[in-house]
Amino acid sequence: MKFQELNRHYKALFELFMLDAIPDHSQTQLEEAMRYSLSAGGKRLRPLILFAVLKAFGKPVEPAFIYGTALEMIHTYSLIHDDLPAMDDDDLRRGKPTNHIQYSEATAILAGDALLTKAFELMTLGEAADEIKLKLIRELALNSGNEGMVGGQQADMNGEHTTLTVEDLESIHARKTGKLIHFAFFAGGLLSEAKEETVKDLEEMAYALGLAYQIRDDILDVQGDETELGKRTGADAKNGKSTYPALLGLNEAKSLFKERLTRALELNQQIYSRETDYDDELLASFIHSLEISSK
Amino acid sequence: MKFQELNRHYKALFELFMLDAIPDHSQTQLEEAMRYSLSAGGKRLRPLILFAVLKAFGKPVEPAFIYGTALEMIHTYSLIHDDLPAMDDDDLRRGKPTNHIQYSEATAILAGDALLTKAFELMTLGEAADEIKLKLIRELALNSGNEGMVGGQQADMNGEHTTLTVEDLESIHARKTGKLIHFAFFAGGLLSEAKEETVKDLEEMAYALGLAYQIRDDILDVQGDETELGKRTGADAKNGKSTYPALLGLNEAKSLFKERLTRALELNQQIYSRETDYDDELLASFIHSLEISSK
Repeated sequence: MKFQELNRHYKALFELFMLDAIPDHSQTQLEEAMRYSLSAGGKRLRPLILFAVLKAFGKPVEPAFIYGTALEMIHTYSLIHDDLPAMDDDDLRRGKPTNHIQYSEATAILAGDALLTKAFELMTLGEAADEIKLKLIRELALNSGNEGMVGGQQADMNGEHTTLTVEDLESIHARKTGKLIHFAFFAGGLLSEAKEETVKDLEEMAYALGLAYQIRDDILDVQGDETELGKRTGADAKNGKSTYPALLGLNEAKSLFKERLTRALELNQQIYSRETDYDDELLASFIHSLEISSK
Repeated sequence: MKFQELNRHYKALFELFMLDAIPDHSQTQLEEAMRYSLSAGGKRLRPLILFAVLKAFGKPVEPAFIYGTALEMIHTYSLIHDDLPAMDDDDLRRGKPTNHIQYSEATAILAGDALLTKAFELMTLGEAADEIKLKLIRELALNSGNEGMVGGQQADMNGEHTTLTVEDLESIHARKTGKLIHFAFFAGGLLSEAKEETVKDLEEMAYALGLAYQIRDDILDVQGDETELGKRTGADAKNGKSTYPALLGLNEAKSLFKERLTRALELNQQIYSRETDYDDELLASFIHSLEISSK
């Protein structure tokens, strides 16, 4: 199975599942505000990675919807809080008013807090064994808290309008976006009961792809400016943000990007050679889907 | 043992334990900001209730420090976020600058998020059995999220400057402050391996005392105004906040308060008659410590 097929098959089902995850309780706008941002669309990249790993190991995907929802709740709360006036001060996200514009700043703070909290409730539910659930909860907290995503967000904020080294940049992105992607791969491996070395390979794949993802974003921001005049790209340069092309040059950034994808494909083959009944096509097609067209 | 003794014996030790709970990881001010608010003092009421229940059942207290820390982290994050300009806009807490004044609004939002996340990491650690940990994590999430504390905070915000019924008021406080107190009693019962009916009694005690606590606050705010002229009390009336004395009259509020304490003492006796080796003096002395002097 290819990643695109998995996406077609499960994404709409998963969206329906997520819609039901937040029943009304507080008789205020709180739950409405939580659902507003959770159902605002997006690629659902993290849950889909989790589902892809499960599928590649021949495991059923739907029992993991609840953990995918938790993961998407963590991602969503971080977007709500990042958009606040005290942070990035964004009014629009995916063409819709951000949470604090649609409701209020106070409600947006609370909706974020409640989504973050609800994620951990969901992690205690579902069919996984108690020991696995606890490992996943610990890993989710470590990946999304001060040692992970939140720490990366703080470092990113501190680093704005200063020139960073490539190492600084890598360390910020590894935490800010890489850690939740890491959790998606790790959780997929654990829930599939994959061998310990295989989980390690999946974790390394996560770091390679998390980095590749960021370099890709940076490259597209520059290239868009060159190839699609009139489109609002080049935002990073305007905002004085440190990027890979700015620090390394466009060609060097492109070869670092390719190197990371190649490493991820290698790891995928390594897993294939170790685990019987592993469908290597699924993650390979996901990795290839990240390639930048060479126009 | 009396509650005051338990407090003297464990509070300082617990403060030291909490100081070590947040090592530096992000090389930013994030962890400093987390520790700043966590170590800003306070009665540590919720952890001490948890410890009191354990001690009353003859269980060791120190293995539960990690769960008490998680509970205090949840309480602390809620104070940091409540103090933000978009919420209560408070500059001072316990005589010290609030988190967003000491650091920045963005850092205060992130420090709150990180404390909330860290609390769930800590709940996966320690000596409790996996099954107990998972029950506690689920209960902590339910008690502190949209169905609990955060929902109560939203309802409280919506209810400002409108006249509430006694039922509304009770429902808001039951969530905003009552639910975390509930968790302290519930966790104490579960970690002590108390009988199911006993855990139920502890939960009812928690609701009685949570309500008593709130009525007490409201009464002291009025009484302070009558008895200690010049002291900054009467803030509730000035802010147009619905309170028990305002809705019920001072005498009725006082008798509701006494009724709740009496109910809590009854439940304590009920547990004593069911469980061997239960030290009823501990929670009785805690309940009596809440009494309002009749000057």
